[in-house]
Amino acid sequence: MTDRTTDHPSERTAGIEHADREQVTTLTRAARRASLVLAQLSRAEKDRALRALADALEASTEAIVAANGEDLARGVADGMPQGLQDRLRLDADRVAAVAQAMRDVAGLPDPVGEVVRGSTLANGLQIRQVRVPMGVVGMIYEARPNVTVDAAALGLKSGNAVILRGGSAAASTNVALVEVLRKGLADLGLPEDAVALLEGGHGAVRALMTARGEVDLLIPRGGAGLIQSVVTESTVPVIETGIGICHVYVDAAADLDKALAISLNSKTHRPSVCNAAETLLVHEDVAGTFLPRALTALHEAGVTLHLGNRSEVVARAVDIPYAEATEADFSTEWHSLEMNVRVVDDLDAAMDHIRRHGSGHTEAIVTEDRAAARRFVAEVDAAAVMVNASTRFTDGGEFGFGAEIGISTQKLHARGPMALPELTTTKWIVEGDGQTRS
Amino acid sequence: MTDRTTDHPSERTAGIEHADREQVTTLTRAARRASLVLAQLSRAEKDRALRALADALEASTEAIVAANGEDLARGVADGMPQGLQDRLRLDADRVAAVAQAMRDVAGLPDPVGEVVRGSTLANGLQIRQVRVPMGVVGMIYEARPNVTVDAAALGLKSGNAVILRGGSAAASTNVALVEVLRKGLADLGLPEDAVALLEGGHGAVRALMTARGEVDLLIPRGGAGLIQSVVTESTVPVIETGIGICHVYVDAAADLDKALAISLNSKTHRPSVCNAAETLLVHEDVAGTFLPRALTALHEAGVTLHLGNRSEVVARAVDIPYAEATEADFSTEWHSLEMNVRVVDDLDAAMDHIRRHGSGHTEAIVTEDRAAARRFVAEVDAAAVMVNASTRFTDGGEFGFGAEIGISTQKLHARGPMALPELTTTKWIVEGDGQTRS
Repeated sequence: MTDRTTDHPSERTAGIEHADREQVTTLTRAARRASLVLAQLSRAEKDRALRALADALEASTEAIVAANGEDLARGVADGMPQGLQDRLRLDADRVAAVAQAMRDVAGLPDPVGEVVRGSTLANGLQIRQVRVPMGVVGMIYEARPNVTVDAAALGLKSGNAVILRGGSAAASTNVALVEVLRKGLADLGLPEDAVALLEGGHGAVRALMTARGEVDLLIPRGGAGLIQSVVTESTVPVIETGIGICHVYVDAAADLDKALAISLNSKTHRPSVCNAAETLLVHEDVAGTFLPRALTALHEAGVTLHLGNRSEVVARAVDIPYAEATEADFSTEWHSLEMNVRVVDDLDAAMDHIRRHGSGHTEAIVTEDRAAARRFVAEVDAAAVMVNASTRFTDGGEFGFGAEIGISTQKLHARGPMALPELTTTKWIVEGDGQTRS
Repeated sequence: MTDRTTDHPSERTAGIEHADREQVTTLTRAARRASLVLAQLSRAEKDRALRALADALEASTEAIVAANGEDLARGVADGMPQGLQDRLRLDADRVAAVAQAMRDVAGLPDPVGEVVRGSTLANGLQIRQVRVPMGVVGMIYEARPNVTVDAAALGLKSGNAVILRGGSAAASTNVALVEVLRKGLADLGLPEDAVALLEGGHGAVRALMTARGEVDLLIPRGGAGLIQSVVTESTVPVIETGIGICHVYVDAAADLDKALAISLNSKTHRPSVCNAAETLLVHEDVAGTFLPRALTALHEAGVTLHLGNRSEVVARAVDIPYAEATEADFSTEWHSLEMNVRVVDDLDAAMDHIRRHGSGHTEAIVTEDRAAARRFVAEVDAAAVMVNASTRFTDGGEFGFGAEIGISTQKLHARGPMALPELTTTKWIVEGDGQTRS
């Protein structure tokens, strides 16, 4: 790909300080040069590097933990809540885990070089479409510093140079981690610019987001606010790892034991992540039998209930506290032990509700009726559609990918859990013996 | 996908007239409703529709030709050049050809429903990734009215509703064509909103480009100016059908007869399209033998030559007129019978030139040396890389796709010739028996 810097005429690039633009261009040019080397590495070379870098991280545990201690001290002084401190903390055990995760990536198949399709044409030309690295991948993320190492590992494995912008809370930790990785790369005779940290303020971030032609792919990971601002402000290609307003629909023909287990698991297994279910829809035919059990079980699991009209009467009957669900509630990603419950007339009403409130992430039906399952699978438009399975299964690890960068809710390029192949593009190779067009 | 309209906070959406936003939202909502029906059609139903619409077009030849006559008369009155008049003209024969192209699409495989990959997980869950329509696809294009019918045909075949914005020169023709298609759809009991025309001024186009959440994919087809403005101004996903600054590199180990044929074909077969070669690079070891033949042949084919230093001396020796190549020339898409020629030191110099000046479209090497071919194929980053074949082969029809929407030069989602599969996205279907995560 050409490394000519494209003009930036759009309003989105207006107001970006010259110094920020220069800093980013310096970084991206270095990343581009590094990416040319990475693109030619064999899997064996990349895996050897990953294992060596894992060792380097462990060998630098003291320095990393010390830097992390600086971040924690600063956070505590700023009144950082315990939960966030825990997410920020990188102690010796966690450094070891992060290093092991890097070794695990070495064990994954190399997406680069995969032949996606090919054929021999009538005129004898042999064409094939092969996977190649994206080139320069940016990642903007919040909080947990292990994302820094994950991103570097997945980038390296897929032949990409990565430019990382972590959260300010983990600033010292990220500097320490990237220093170790860069030195490790240099010791291996590989370009240290394969991994770089973007420092500076919001102006630098905006310059990264608008570095069209220099950054091939930008992935935001974090809260809805971060993702939305990256998606709307970027001129470089972005993958939207969107919000998850996921539904579990208990059909008239549902096995109610499965329905209970799936509803509970989808909400409570890990309520703060995107594939947790926010709304339980129940067919009116089974509401009388199912809702008493379900509301009780959810309540006992600590879930705050937001109920539609026809669910409220059940809650009152079994003496469970609840809030009245508002229309806005049905379009809310609770990120916690809170759930909407609504009785629906039928499958069509359930799918209509999902169409209006879903975010295209994960939608599940519980049913033993083949026709209902087939309709739900065919007509619900989301990254993942489940039949008789918890929404929590939309996950790269669960899908057997061995890694996960995030879960895309957009339709272009990647949809659902993203792993190594999603960090690649393709090119066509055409081999002939002098063919020309007549 | 949710049909909630997303807020448009970005500067790009500022200044869009309320009336334009309303018009576009009305169109996109109708298209979304239509797309839900199209997504469920079988291939047989879609093919039947395509053939019926082809018949409807032919049955309306008189009305279409008359509308086209209005456009031509207006164009002539405005001083439209003969060449553009010819591109605009839709006579009876061309209507028949356009109808036949629609029938040809019926003969293509249906991308919807293809199972891309799948597996059974350790816990018994069966997962599969299947192709589904994008949903609502917009197309902004210039000039030739047959694109209106092509887009509708490819959209319908891939289960998408399309919103079309053609060039103003073909306004009456496009209105007539879309009227026939919409009536034909209604006669078939299918939603007429599967095909719609976006009317209005530039404000309406901007509203379409920023209809995030309403338009799933936007494809611009036309000149560099149109494409750039769509790419930079859009907030909806866009596929960049970019410019083609393509190269033919004649290596030290090239078969010079093949090199001559490929060089000529790549430039002169159809000089105005994106896969025409703009620059000929020649290894210095063969320049003395090859250049006299090549420059003479190119000159005799009517090609205006822009020559680097070491090529000039050859041109003077064989008494051929030329212009001195400037650095800017090497980054120019000539779109005509003009070509840059430059002698390079070696393969590395050739690839370096391509890296600096290429647009990531198509790059060709002519060589009999396996190592040189393998390096070129591995290290040149473009949508298509040829060995001993004309650059003119980067084409959906030539690749056997049976259709082509355009040639993408971006890296996300589609790269190279785009056809039916590129108008689809995927979703994961997970089938279980009550599995939950522990």
